[in-house]
Amino acid sequence: MEKTKIIVAGPRGRMGREAVKLVHETNGFELAAVLDHLHDGMNLKDIEGFQGINAPVYSDVEQCFSGVTADVLIDLTTPEVGMLHAETALTHGIRPVVGTTGFSNQDLDRLARLTKETGLGCIIAPNFAVGAILMMKFSQMAAKFFPDVEIIELHHDQKLDAPSGTAVKTAEMIKSSRQTKEQGHPAEKETINGARGANIDGMHIHSVRLPGLIAHQQVLFGADGQMLSLRHDSFNRASFMSGVKLAVETVMKQGGLVYGLENIIE
Amino acid sequence: MEKTKIIVAGPRGRMGREAVKLVHETNGFELAAVLDHLHDGMNLKDIEGFQGINAPVYSDVEQCFSGVTADVLIDLTTPEVGMLHAETALTHGIRPVVGTTGFSNQDLDRLARLTKETGLGCIIAPNFAVGAILMMKFSQMAAKFFPDVEIIELHHDQKLDAPSGTAVKTAEMIKSSRQTKEQGHPAEKETINGARGANIDGMHIHSVRLPGLIAHQQVLFGADGQMLSLRHDSFNRASFMSGVKLAVETVMKQGGLVYGLENIIE
Amino acid sequence: MEKTKIIVAGPRGRMGREAVKLVHETNGFELAAVLDHLHDGMNLKDIEGFQGINAPVYSDVEQCFSGVTADVLIDLTTPEVGMLHAETALTHGIRPVVGTTGFSNQDLDRLARLTKETGLGCIIAPNFAVGAILMMKFSQMAAKFFPDVEIIELHHDQKLDAPSGTAVKTAEMIKSSRQTKEQGHPAEKETINGARGANIDGMHIHSVRLPGLIAHQQVLFGADGQMLSLRHDSFNRASFMSGVKLAVETVMKQGGLVYGLENIIE
Amino acid sequence: MEKTKIIVAGPRGRMGREAVKLVHETNGFELAAVLDHLHDGMNLKDIEGFQGINAPVYSDVEQCFSGVTADVLIDLTTPEVGMLHAETALTHGIRPVVGTTGFSNQDLDRLARLTKETGLGCIIAPNFAVGAILMMKFSQMAAKFFPDVEIIELHHDQKLDAPSGTAVKTAEMIKSSRQTKEQGHPAEKETINGARGANIDGMHIHSVRLPGLIAHQQVLFGADGQMLSLRHDSFNRASFMSGVKLAVETVMKQGGLVYGLENIIE
Repeated sequence: MEKTKIIVAGPRGRMGREAVKLVHETNGFELAAVLDHLHDGMNLKDIEGFQGINAPVYSDVEQCFSGVTADVLIDLTTPEVGMLHAETALTHGIRPVVGTTGFSNQDLDRLARLTKETGLGCIIAPNFAVGAILMMKFSQMAAKFFPDVEIIELHHDQKLDAPSGTAVKTAEMIKSSRQTKEQGHPAEKETINGARGANIDGMHIHSVRLPGLIAHQQVLFGADGQMLSLRHDSFNRASFMSGVKLAVETVMKQGGLVYGLENIIE
Repeated sequence: MEKTKIIVAGPRGRMGREAVKLVHETNGFELAAVLDHLHDGMNLKDIEGFQGINAPVYSDVEQCFSGVTADVLIDLTTPEVGMLHAETALTHGIRPVVGTTGFSNQDLDRLARLTKETGLGCIIAPNFAVGAILMMKFSQMAAKFFPDVEIIELHHDQKLDAPSGTAVKTAEMIKSSRQTKEQGHPAEKETINGARGANIDGMHIHSVRLPGLIAHQQVLFGADGQMLSLRHDSFNRASFMSGVKLAVETVMKQGGLVYGLENIIE
Repeated sequence: MEKTKIIVAGPRGRMGREAVKLVHETNGFELAAVLDHLHDGMNLKDIEGFQGINAPVYSDVEQCFSGVTADVLIDLTTPEVGMLHAETALTHGIRPVVGTTGFSNQDLDRLARLTKETGLGCIIAPNFAVGAILMMKFSQMAAKFFPDVEIIELHHDQKLDAPSGTAVKTAEMIKSSRQTKEQGHPAEKETINGARGANIDGMHIHSVRLPGLIAHQQVLFGADGQMLSLRHDSFNRASFMSGVKLAVETVMKQGGLVYGLENIIE
Repeated sequence: MEKTKIIVAGPRGRMGREAVKLVHETNGFELAAVLDHLHDGMNLKDIEGFQGINAPVYSDVEQCFSGVTADVLIDLTTPEVGMLHAETALTHGIRPVVGTTGFSNQDLDRLARLTKETGLGCIIAPNFAVGAILMMKFSQMAAKFFPDVEIIELHHDQKLDAPSGTAVKTAEMIKSSRQTKEQGHPAEKETINGARGANIDGMHIHSVRLPGLIAHQQVLFGADGQMLSLRHDSFNRASFMSGVKLAVETVMKQGGLVYGLENIIE
């Protein structure tokens, strides 16, 4: 089988480094080049932290996509640059897998049109953690049968906001598949304020913050004599790797624009 | 909305009692009659444990189904009797929901044919615990993305066999959606026999037995920097109630034979 | 070894029934009599629910304690009656194990004096669930080393108050062994009210309420790169049995008044 | 309050780096020097990975301990060197905290004698993870009341041996506080070999191995209608920091030899 040739944009960022490592170590993947606003013309292996990983570095987008034969662009830069990269990639026959948020509806429309014209796929994924996405998806499914649900999310104590974005997103996905319901006894009383947590559409969300923790979430469903619990633990940033891999494999097989990994998981 | 009229067969069994209670307490359900080989001609409310629940008792199947107007039969008897009940119900325009195992392929063929001829639905469910079924179904889905999986099942210490039937069924469902894979390091060694558990298709299953426990199972998926855990706790036999309810609602809406609740959950 | 002869007061209550069963089924224990304001002069085996359990029933306290040779009284009645029972038992050379709350300081003083005079033991235990007590005790110990702690308690949705009494008691025990500390980032913000739970001395408590659940609690300690979690699940009221047994065994061995099972666990 | 002056031996090792960071970042601790077989005469801040951390580097033990005023030696080298370091430290009035295993009984005797002669403390700790030690200690205590126990340990799939050393140590500590008991039903049967795990003194141990995991252990106690679970999650090697800190604080306060952190936790 021929290898999938991949360009990584933003190789020196936190996520970019992991993506370079992923491409380098995955059978069937090949690192064709990296796109980096610094180090134009160098080889990646001569840059600190990339010893032994052989790939040309380009700073000019146009030059990169016309000079290199590639199947997929993995873009882990910023929304502004990401849009330019994705468009340019599609016009050069390269499928974008973009891991940034902040695209406007106009941006998405333009990318959708380009995928139609070219017949190529394009995946925009604000969240690459497949485990977290499965947890949310399964929660949405389970709520059809078990409408009684509460969410506990646990993070390190450097996190400033509560509840977490993932918890809120989970509640919204559940909301779409169950009838509004106020959890708990109608006459229940908090003897200390806040005990019953935050409330989204009747679902209660509890935010734990402790040193040492990383990023964890539990979705608990209670019903007649039983409990169903779905839990995701994210131990480190490598956890997005399987999502990037899945996106690359999917974008090679199907055309059109996909927004959100939950739409390629079924 | 008109109420769904229901006959319960086997009302004095462990499961039957719960089913009578369920029908009695559910808005939109109405107990039309019970089918019981004892107490013919009595009223249920005069039998011990059913105070206040008004319904005629029939011992003769034919007489019951022709004398009572009903939409659904909930059968919680035995495979032998269950087959006769289901067939007779269908010929009287009543949809069977049967909670017994042990039907032969011939039986299932005959029931399938009868549902076609009558246009009615019929649901055979060896397991009514919706939570356990969701756990198995989600495990099957998750294994497509996370092939690395182990199962821990925990039961009271009166249980004789290990692993549990649910654990084995879960492993088989997972097997159907992932490529065979031997979990653990190829060179791993048990310094004490059995530490790594039972092995089904490379998946390891661990059986915990402790007094006080009831029936619990965890399915653990590990991947790059993350863990996804699905857990089901069954605290008492009321846990099958939501499954019976789901089956009744479904059999009212769709024709044809369904074998296994996992096929009406999507 | 001689058997410990036991009188159970309040045999027809929820807890009393379990206690009778415990005494009847435990090797080394013997049911000497029951104290019940009804059924005076009958035998327990003739009362519904006690088939096969042979013991005389007394309604008069004085008559019971002078007519029956016994080592221990297990009292599961009410605070008012419980005090009278305990005093009378001590004066008859019988050691009380009392499972009611609501004793006044005056009551406790009087009982302490009586135990000194008689050299007998007396145990008052507002909570017999040894597992819950161990969880609280371990939490108190762990907080010395890991001062960062949050509590999650989960109950059925018929419970009216939040947080639970056990959670509040746990927080108070922890408070006694750690310096006051406000958990979470000093600048943290609730984007939805209540997300961070109730606050006792800087510890956050989260109350989950779902149908199907019984009584569960988790105490989570976070520190540098690690988490320690203590969890207690109470599945049914039999969970107080090991506490009653422990109290009976202890009261046979040591004199003096003990208030709270946590003081006989070390 | 005066700061505790500390020498770290083995600063460039995995654990040594964390210890240097701990001392540098802890209020009340001061890094007096490091002992390293390389880089004699340099300053730590000029060695890669230690920017901004000011401390003289010594390669000669004698020279280090006589040239530097210090209260405590944290030794994270090897057993051979560690013994020499500990002895020399004590003769120079410096209290050793040693994090290596492999000391002989003779070694320990010699150290015990030296602590008596000098009146100083010395702590040898094969395991600095306070959370794991608390889990083991609590397990030992709980087993007195709940003799029914099983252990589940979960590690990454690069681990070669099963069960883990910590699980075996936990079982041994539990064994010392409960009567031997064979868990599970006397007539239980494994329909697939290994389902019931490894067996130590009747306790069953289950070893889960999955990618993504780090080091986790659960100890489960079952009793009448309840379960008590103790869990420790180790997310990264920083988890030994609180143990080192505890050891330093303790060795400043008490004389004599301590072997194992479990002996300074009560």
